[in-house]
Amino acid sequence: MSATIHRLDPTRPAPSLEPMMSLVAADMNAVNAVILDRMQSEIPLIPELAGHLIAGGGKRMRPMLTLASAKLLGYTGNRHHRLAASVEFIHTATLLHDDVVDGSDLRRGKRTANLIWGNPASILVGDFLFSRSFELMVEDGSLKVLKILSNASAVIAEGEVNQLTAARRVDLGEERYLDIIGAKTAALFAAACKIAAVVAERSDGEEAALDAFGRNLGIAFQLVDDAIDYVSDAGTMGKDTGDDFREGKVTLPVILAYARGSEEDRKFWKDAILGFRASDEDFVHAVDLVRATRAIDDTLARARHYGQRAIDAIAGFAPGKARDAMTEAVEFAVARAY
Amino acid sequence: MSATIHRLDPTRPAPSLEPMMSLVAADMNAVNAVILDRMQSEIPLIPELAGHLIAGGGKRMRPMLTLASAKLLGYTGNRHHRLAASVEFIHTATLLHDDVVDGSDLRRGKRTANLIWGNPASILVGDFLFSRSFELMVEDGSLKVLKILSNASAVIAEGEVNQLTAARRVDLGEERYLDIIGAKTAALFAAACKIAAVVAERSDGEEAALDAFGRNLGIAFQLVDDAIDYVSDAGTMGKDTGDDFREGKVTLPVILAYARGSEEDRKFWKDAILGFRASDEDFVHAVDLVRATRAIDDTLARARHYGQRAIDAIAGFAPGKARDAMTEAVEFAVARAY
Repeated sequence: MSATIHRLDPTRPAPSLEPMMSLVAADMNAVNAVILDRMQSEIPLIPELAGHLIAGGGKRMRPMLTLASAKLLGYTGNRHHRLAASVEFIHTATLLHDDVVDGSDLRRGKRTANLIWGNPASILVGDFLFSRSFELMVEDGSLKVLKILSNASAVIAEGEVNQLTAARRVDLGEERYLDIIGAKTAALFAAACKIAAVVAERSDGEEAALDAFGRNLGIAFQLVDDAIDYVSDAGTMGKDTGDDFREGKVTLPVILAYARGSEEDRKFWKDAILGFRASDEDFVHAVDLVRATRAIDDTLARARHYGQRAIDAIAGFAPGKARDAMTEAVEFAVARAY
Repeated sequence: MSATIHRLDPTRPAPSLEPMMSLVAADMNAVNAVILDRMQSEIPLIPELAGHLIAGGGKRMRPMLTLASAKLLGYTGNRHHRLAASVEFIHTATLLHDDVVDGSDLRRGKRTANLIWGNPASILVGDFLFSRSFELMVEDGSLKVLKILSNASAVIAEGEVNQLTAARRVDLGEERYLDIIGAKTAALFAAACKIAAVVAERSDGEEAALDAFGRNLGIAFQLVDDAIDYVSDAGTMGKDTGDDFREGKVTLPVILAYARGSEEDRKFWKDAILGFRASDEDFVHAVDLVRATRAIDDTLARARHYGQRAIDAIAGFAPGKARDAMTEAVEFAVARAY
């Protein structure tokens, strides 16, 4: 165990994802090769549509976590390349279906696949990528990995349905919101990290530590994403400010602002979440309210809490470049909104 | 090898699915118990929506094939119960997504899930069932079964995208049509049968024979389905006559009627497939044309060809109740339209 204590420290220079990207750069080339190879099909629409999203400027956060976790464990094989690609395929399939479900037009500043090719194509290519992700896992041949990733997939889908059921319920509450993001976002982050411990044949304790790292990072990541939607200075990962508000999504900033608001404020939030307040002026008012109630500050404070837990989850691993890069990746994730 | 020759014989009494249903009745109860148990979730919408379709009057054709194939091989274990449920989940997920893709309102004479709960819920519950199907396979633990079913899933999705790309192309051609139905329908029939040979630990030759049985039956089944759409006397599996025509689907009856039609007929089909001919009168005219060109007769003749190949594929297995029931099931499948 290392005695170094990593803390989220606002006085240090801005944290960056760069160390983690450098750490896994060579491995990521191998993963990209698998992704490109395995998204092919005789049906030209499949690579065309899948490529739009896969080449569309995503950071490959989840496969990066698999690769970094493997580095942390000193794994020197190459099984994780195929599995990291499999994780990215699950994620891409989810994004394709999410954009249909939400009726989104833009993702990462680009037109969504459903806008260009239509909902049917997005649904079916999502299904294809999802099936392909399982084929990749089966080729790897570890039943343990298959169990982790098939369970994560079911949990993600359950989380998405849970979110759908919760739609437009302004009184959702923080607990259920955490259940939802724990399922729809954090489960795949956790699985992406945990499978590295499986391929590296490490102990149950190390598996659990990496699971906890990914899960807490995933929750922090989603909390910050949800906060960014109400932060008007953009430049933040291509996410359009105000999207969640205009779609009537109930995220933690809304939950806190609603709970802390006056009678009048609550009326505003109810109307907004029901879709009756989607103008630019309404959004400006919403930003005022989340600021006045400190809902954004506290959403980010919650994110820092989970970020710190992620950092502490890997504190027991050997110090070095991998652990430092993963720690800084967490710091970057929670610092994005500043 | 048995010397008995089974032939499709129009002079015998009407074939029935009943012998196959009796053959597997006890096993099917076990499969239904797995299905009911594993479609549960803490999110109430999931069992509600899934149950609508799963309890919605389907014949459980695909799990029935797994069970019958296991009987044919004298398998006495119970691994096939979980796997048959897994196959049904894949099928159900596909139906949920298909109905969204096609914008269908009715299936088996009932309102579709997307009509009742909306497209987002159908997409996401489909994803859940698909993930759950993989969890069931992983619990079984056979990498060979996982490979067969994950490959079948990818092929189905590819076939669906192929069909989407081919939409409204009246000059599709019989070969590409066969590719599409081979992927979107026959691949899962083939896999459902083949996995029985895997759990029963039989030879590659027996696996291949059951794969061929399922694949040919699947093609025959889809051909008859596509013919039935142009046969006006209903009572045929809850399928609404004229649905394919009104949705502009290019099926074999259309392909043959178009290829064999006059200049004027071709103009009619082109307009119809583009969606400009969807009235009841247009459908009556379409029925006249497929009859006049013998397109229905020949679609059914093609179905009998594949049905015969299915029957011959299992001719080498021991004679008995299982083989007879499977043979009669094929006869039933191809005789449905008469």
